[in-house]
Amino acid sequence: MSENIMTYETVDLSDDDEGVIIIDQTRLPGKVEMIRLRTAQEIWDAIYLLKVRGAPAIGVAAAFGIYVLARQIAEEEKEFSGFYKRFRKQKEYLDSARPTAVNLTWALNRMDKVCRKAHEDGNDVPKIVEILGREAREIKEEDVRVCRAIGEYGLSLVKPGDGILTHCNAGQLATCKYGTATAPIYLGQERGYRFRVFADETRPLLQGARLTAYELHSAGVDVTLICDNMSGMVMKNGWVNAVFVGCDRVAANGDVANKIGTSVVAAVAKQYGIPFYVCAPTSTIDLDTPTGAEITIEQRPAEEVTEMWYKERMAPEGVKVFNPAFDVTDHELITAIVTEHGIARAPFTESLKKYK
Amino acid sequence: MSENIMTYETVDLSDDDEGVIIIDQTRLPGKVEMIRLRTAQEIWDAIYLLKVRGAPAIGVAAAFGIYVLARQIAEEEKEFSGFYKRFRKQKEYLDSARPTAVNLTWALNRMDKVCRKAHEDGNDVPKIVEILGREAREIKEEDVRVCRAIGEYGLSLVKPGDGILTHCNAGQLATCKYGTATAPIYLGQERGYRFRVFADETRPLLQGARLTAYELHSAGVDVTLICDNMSGMVMKNGWVNAVFVGCDRVAANGDVANKIGTSVVAAVAKQYGIPFYVCAPTSTIDLDTPTGAEITIEQRPAEEVTEMWYKERMAPEGVKVFNPAFDVTDHELITAIVTEHGIARAPFTESLKKYK
Repeated sequence: MSENIMTYETVDLSDDDEGVIIIDQTRLPGKVEMIRLRTAQEIWDAIYLLKVRGAPAIGVAAAFGIYVLARQIAEEEKEFSGFYKRFRKQKEYLDSARPTAVNLTWALNRMDKVCRKAHEDGNDVPKIVEILGREAREIKEEDVRVCRAIGEYGLSLVKPGDGILTHCNAGQLATCKYGTATAPIYLGQERGYRFRVFADETRPLLQGARLTAYELHSAGVDVTLICDNMSGMVMKNGWVNAVFVGCDRVAANGDVANKIGTSVVAAVAKQYGIPFYVCAPTSTIDLDTPTGAEITIEQRPAEEVTEMWYKERMAPEGVKVFNPAFDVTDHELITAIVTEHGIARAPFTESLKKYK
Repeated sequence: MSENIMTYETVDLSDDDEGVIIIDQTRLPGKVEMIRLRTAQEIWDAIYLLKVRGAPAIGVAAAFGIYVLARQIAEEEKEFSGFYKRFRKQKEYLDSARPTAVNLTWALNRMDKVCRKAHEDGNDVPKIVEILGREAREIKEEDVRVCRAIGEYGLSLVKPGDGILTHCNAGQLATCKYGTATAPIYLGQERGYRFRVFADETRPLLQGARLTAYELHSAGVDVTLICDNMSGMVMKNGWVNAVFVGCDRVAANGDVANKIGTSVVAAVAKQYGIPFYVCAPTSTIDLDTPTGAEITIEQRPAEEVTEMWYKERMAPEGVKVFNPAFDVTDHELITAIVTEHGIARAPFTESLKKYK
């Protein structure tokens, strides 16, 4: 069995508050390597290069990141106007790292709001920085509570011995603990539910193989790795009772942007009459985005498909490649959206408002 | 642009009839390497290791293979009884290389039948071997005619400028010319149809990336490589007007065994209202198999998923892996089965009998 990844923190602050500490997820499963990020460039790169990934974990990393940068700015800018100007610039820079997951923007906006409020309340810059540190830590603690609550609601949808299929990694490595899609699995594991989990490998970046299979196997869960195109067969064989996936953004009508391939799993689940559940912290629900059609889908380099990971190039030179990082699953394919406040069902336009 | 693979023969006899010559498809797209197979072990390995793959090409390789072996046996066995005993043994050995594609068995049974008939007709062993050689060559020539006819029927189902999605490789590299699923594409290309083709990469063995994208790109077709889990997005975007796939075995009720993931593409196509066409030489139609449930699905080693092609292992040590080479697509998901004799539609139980 692998080293138990559950004993590491996905995202943390260094003891001296001077850096963000993350597990470099691009090195998994071969190596568990903790790295420390101090500069805006390092934090941006870590998010862009998927060293830290997963909507909730990106939010926490950004919150810690902007706090670490605020500390640095405060050393040079004693007046709020100068401090805030640079704070905003760094906030906008970090926000540009990835476009699809709303949590990045959500966490940075929350830190921004707290910054302005602290100023309005008459605090000086050192005190504002202290308040920002408290807020970033609170975002992380909230994430753990939120994931646990999602786990409890999710667990109510399945029964001991069930087969569960998941796509990509919405696990502990995508959050601070429990994960979102994996939260019901981990809670079930604690209570002897003995789920049989199928993890889609999730091309091209293989988060399912490298991260989900890794963290579940390491936690002693009965997990079987499959290629993305095998979901049809395992469902047809009757091995899957429910699908749980995470999400990067939920539109007001219940359309869900999540890792590329999610909409494929949803269509296949529909074909075989299997319930399809999206696990969504309310921080990922974006009522300002009316439908999935308005969500910007990040396009990534062709090399991720043609040569990344490989000993040699696996596609002909010069061939066109389409490599979207996410897709949108139509709300009609979604059985329910599991939030930390309860389980939203159709019509989502109504139910999401209630839980947000 | 890559070297035009269309100028090579996928499977051929050596000039001296002493070996089977194939393109080693496990080396593509990096290297075009022709290899010569002489012994039963070499032929079996080439089929098992997918150096030659694709139902029709496997059939031709087996026919040439058993002919080459028959020549060797005939050097030592002058009497039919001794000759035939060893011929049968080699035939059964070759037949054991892969279980799912019916063409392997089909071609070997056809050669066996010709062998017995030639004996009953009073031919001696050298003459029987000569007749076997003629039959093997005929199987190959038939394959070219059959693929071209499938191409013509398939072409009648689409129009110039259409987007076509295909899965795995049912191309020239899976046959002797034109391919099956690609036959409408190549014929359309000759006639200025300007299709926009999407090739699923097809994990774990990447036949779509390594072979289909390679041969289409090399022939000047507008082809875009995608990961298997991106089919949902390209279909939702309205980029696909039809899906064409090959097949390894068609059951009497129209259920189709084909490369793993085919049933996923079919379910997604249904979701988006896109016609799903299976291109099937009648040699792959097996009326003795009532439904897909009776088709043996080959299971392959976990290493193909976890480490093959990669610089390092991409899944945790010890994790379970499910790696079926094929899946069965329910006939209800299939719009039509395109054979060399015409286009079969539901109810397939009736229409397949007509064309077989």
